[in-house]
Amino acid sequence: MTTRLSEIDGRIGATVNEIFAKTPFDTLGVQTPLLMRSDAGLYINIHEAALVNYPVMQLEYRKQNNRFTSNLCKDAVGNAAYLPIPFQTPWRTIVVSDKATDLLASKLILNLNEPCKIADPSWIKPTKFIGVWWEMHIGKGTWNYGEVQNGRLVPNGKHAANTENVMRYIDFASKHGFDGVLVEGWNVGWEDWFGKWKEDVFDFVTPYPDFDVARLQKYAQSKGVKLIMHHETSSSVTNYQQYMDTAYAFMHRYGYDAVKTGYVGRIIPRGEHHDGQWMVNHYNKVVEATARERIMVDMHECARPTGMNRTWPNWVANEAARGQEFCNSGAVGNLPEHETILPFTRLMGGPMDYTPGMFEMKLNAFRGADRPEAVHTTLAKQLALYVTMYSPFQMAADLPENYEKHLDALQFIKDVAADWDDTRYLKAEPGDYIVVARKAKATQNWFLGAITDEKKRAFDVSLDFLTEGINYEAIIYADAPNAHYDTNPSAYVISKKKVNSKTVLALNLAEGGGCAISIMPAK
Amino acid sequence: MTTRLSEIDGRIGATVNEIFAKTPFDTLGVQTPLLMRSDAGLYINIHEAALVNYPVMQLEYRKQNNRFTSNLCKDAVGNAAYLPIPFQTPWRTIVVSDKATDLLASKLILNLNEPCKIADPSWIKPTKFIGVWWEMHIGKGTWNYGEVQNGRLVPNGKHAANTENVMRYIDFASKHGFDGVLVEGWNVGWEDWFGKWKEDVFDFVTPYPDFDVARLQKYAQSKGVKLIMHHETSSSVTNYQQYMDTAYAFMHRYGYDAVKTGYVGRIIPRGEHHDGQWMVNHYNKVVEATARERIMVDMHECARPTGMNRTWPNWVANEAARGQEFCNSGAVGNLPEHETILPFTRLMGGPMDYTPGMFEMKLNAFRGADRPEAVHTTLAKQLALYVTMYSPFQMAADLPENYEKHLDALQFIKDVAADWDDTRYLKAEPGDYIVVARKAKATQNWFLGAITDEKKRAFDVSLDFLTEGINYEAIIYADAPNAHYDTNPSAYVISKKKVNSKTVLALNLAEGGGCAISIMPAK
Repeated sequence: MTTRLSEIDGRIGATVNEIFAKTPFDTLGVQTPLLMRSDAGLYINIHEAALVNYPVMQLEYRKQNNRFTSNLCKDAVGNAAYLPIPFQTPWRTIVVSDKATDLLASKLILNLNEPCKIADPSWIKPTKFIGVWWEMHIGKGTWNYGEVQNGRLVPNGKHAANTENVMRYIDFASKHGFDGVLVEGWNVGWEDWFGKWKEDVFDFVTPYPDFDVARLQKYAQSKGVKLIMHHETSSSVTNYQQYMDTAYAFMHRYGYDAVKTGYVGRIIPRGEHHDGQWMVNHYNKVVEATARERIMVDMHECARPTGMNRTWPNWVANEAARGQEFCNSGAVGNLPEHETILPFTRLMGGPMDYTPGMFEMKLNAFRGADRPEAVHTTLAKQLALYVTMYSPFQMAADLPENYEKHLDALQFIKDVAADWDDTRYLKAEPGDYIVVARKAKATQNWFLGAITDEKKRAFDVSLDFLTEGINYEAIIYADAPNAHYDTNPSAYVISKKKVNSKTVLALNLAEGGGCAISIMPAK
Repeated sequence: MTTRLSEIDGRIGATVNEIFAKTPFDTLGVQTPLLMRSDAGLYINIHEAALVNYPVMQLEYRKQNNRFTSNLCKDAVGNAAYLPIPFQTPWRTIVVSDKATDLLASKLILNLNEPCKIADPSWIKPTKFIGVWWEMHIGKGTWNYGEVQNGRLVPNGKHAANTENVMRYIDFASKHGFDGVLVEGWNVGWEDWFGKWKEDVFDFVTPYPDFDVARLQKYAQSKGVKLIMHHETSSSVTNYQQYMDTAYAFMHRYGYDAVKTGYVGRIIPRGEHHDGQWMVNHYNKVVEATARERIMVDMHECARPTGMNRTWPNWVANEAARGQEFCNSGAVGNLPEHETILPFTRLMGGPMDYTPGMFEMKLNAFRGADRPEAVHTTLAKQLALYVTMYSPFQMAADLPENYEKHLDALQFIKDVAADWDDTRYLKAEPGDYIVVARKAKATQNWFLGAITDEKKRAFDVSLDFLTEGINYEAIIYADAPNAHYDTNPSAYVISKKKVNSKTVLALNLAEGGGCAISIMPAK
């Protein structure tokens, strides 16, 4: 959200979601990373690095003297932290530049963290995956196997994580070269998991009767695909800590090497908060425990990251901000400017599992024609997000059947890398647009992503980052001339062009649009 | 403590111990089981049964209308309980009689609990044990292996749970027929465990370098003795829940079948209380988790029991009141009347690990001559406690070297049973005296215990509970004529006598004294 400091006024309340992932701590409170732009054109980011054994630093704005003060989230008895002496607090970071692109390129927060503590991190791999997930969000299927009636779990016939359906996803992943398939709703507990501040919900090892763990693992392996585990804790964190070692051993036994965790609901221990020391320590425990079992972890609804993926590179991603699933929550969803802000704020702390790759923007297909929920981007912008939203653990979030309708556009998601050895932020203005080019690790393949907010924009982009003397073929996934995030989101055109380091490309982005380009050496 | 209701006045503060096991919830608050005697001679006990998923019922006395009201311990956010609907609260129990002995014999609380949930409980066995324990209490040795200096653990040379010392205890146990040896202070963490509300203290599987788990297990097994595990949680209960499954698996691997747990210190989750729903659920989780691993459990510093050992007979004992270790806390210690009260109060809810069997009452041997701590009973009373304080998990708490000095008195502890198939409360007055006879399971052996408070007493006790027609030999462990709990506690006389169901024995108990009698069929 973009606002003048003097206009911070408690509107945060309108953005608080019922999942209880966050509670406003102050009507004039803001989360870091906070991005400010002075009227004189200075870009300023305030955050912290290496958050270990300490509460999150929140900021409270004091209108009377135009200052921020740090607020440390308190625990159930009103204390901020329990510390050994001597103790070093996390770093407080301020990144300042007169160029917005410099902020995006800053590695300050990452590098203030301790070096990697995993002796042999070779098992940690950039991963692109699909998932049995969005179909539950849009109402096609359910997480729960059924409803409890008179103490018995009665199937509802809509359970998405059933063996047959998961096999369909495995087939699709295998056919299109995805590394993995995330499966949510596979385990017992979803039939009564939310809204009661209940402690004993999931045990993380008991599948629903229609989810055949062993068979699916064998099938996935035969297809060269990894299944990705899901642990929704329902924020009953005492419960998760009790079972997590057992759960990771279970994953190990069945060949899972990545887990997506979730913290939806009110936290147990009651009185603790996502941003408090106890929960911060919990997230760090999970990272260390998964590292011991050689498991990559992607945390949703946790405190926002502070660059600790340098120390624990198995911490491949977090959500920890409004990801794309929030498009599904009420008519507002995420505004078109949302993705032009996140790299300046949330992503300063680390990779985000934003779940890009939506091809069907209107979400009323399964929800009924009168439902307004929609993704507020064009399809081309969805492709560009794979470049603008850094994450080595990157989802292609839409349904296989939606991808089948646009296999030409899917090609970009299949081609794009999930990790990089060079990045050039070409143009950026927070809340307006971002243009970035990245080079896929150990290749000469570049990928360019350009996105805009609700305004249409034109950019001339020089490809001078390309290696001189090499001829490349660019595949340009652009908004169609009549594309528009709201009225015509799925209109795109794909064109090919020979390019080299002297080429200047003219990009035209629709309202809420984008452009994605793969640039690979010509054969 | 004995007081008229009208005199309840906040004196409870003076009895609160620094271990933080309890915090007064009200200056006019009392814990149940509450025992009252009306001026007209009616005995009334108020307690509860089957405490499951609910906070402890505490009582608050209202002087203005002479009434008690129930207080449910609140959690960190001020709530008493989180419940499914429909829900049954625990039973509230009132046991009333004009005979004090009837109260002691009541099985109301036990029988209001659900039947046994362990399909095959044959592995649960009455156990008599000694322990590497009291020598730390009196200062001869330490729980901790050493002190942390500059980040290194420097041995202090006094660590009691070292392999050699434990072998000495095993030898003693084997020689005298004890089933087990409890060892406290065996695991890493004791060097910095208390007073800092610290979360990560123990992991329950890492021994100190001088405690050889595998070697000791082999040695104990060769001597026909079980080692008994100790888990001090330091009340970091989130931590214990995280490790407990691993810890029980570790026990299983090394042949331990019983664990003594402890909850000393301020609880984590911070803001929770021993008597709150969360902790009640924790205790019950421990009981179920240990049952799954075929482990008996003896909890110290937990909420007082409510007869759940019927449902979970592996819950062999609790402390949950001032046990004998409190004799070591300041000059007051436990008053001579203490043991004549507990069976009417604390023990109404279930067995107590009171740790009887002290032979050396003056605790200044290792603490220095000027230290006043003492056990306020005679030695004969210590023997009688094995009969008056019911527990199927019964310790002989003193040091082997103290037992070596009184092997004739030790014989009673060796002979006495730890579980019974018949019990006769012969005489009792709360706060004054108790005389009880019990028949060892599946034998014709009876054991009689008589104890008094600070006053000397004489009783004529009819042995008409013995089987008619059988001739028995009684061994009578009595206070010497000049015995006195304070001035001459270790003076006792042992005599033998042929008895039968027609015998009436004249017992003389010294101030703070007692009498223990074994009655076995004559050979």
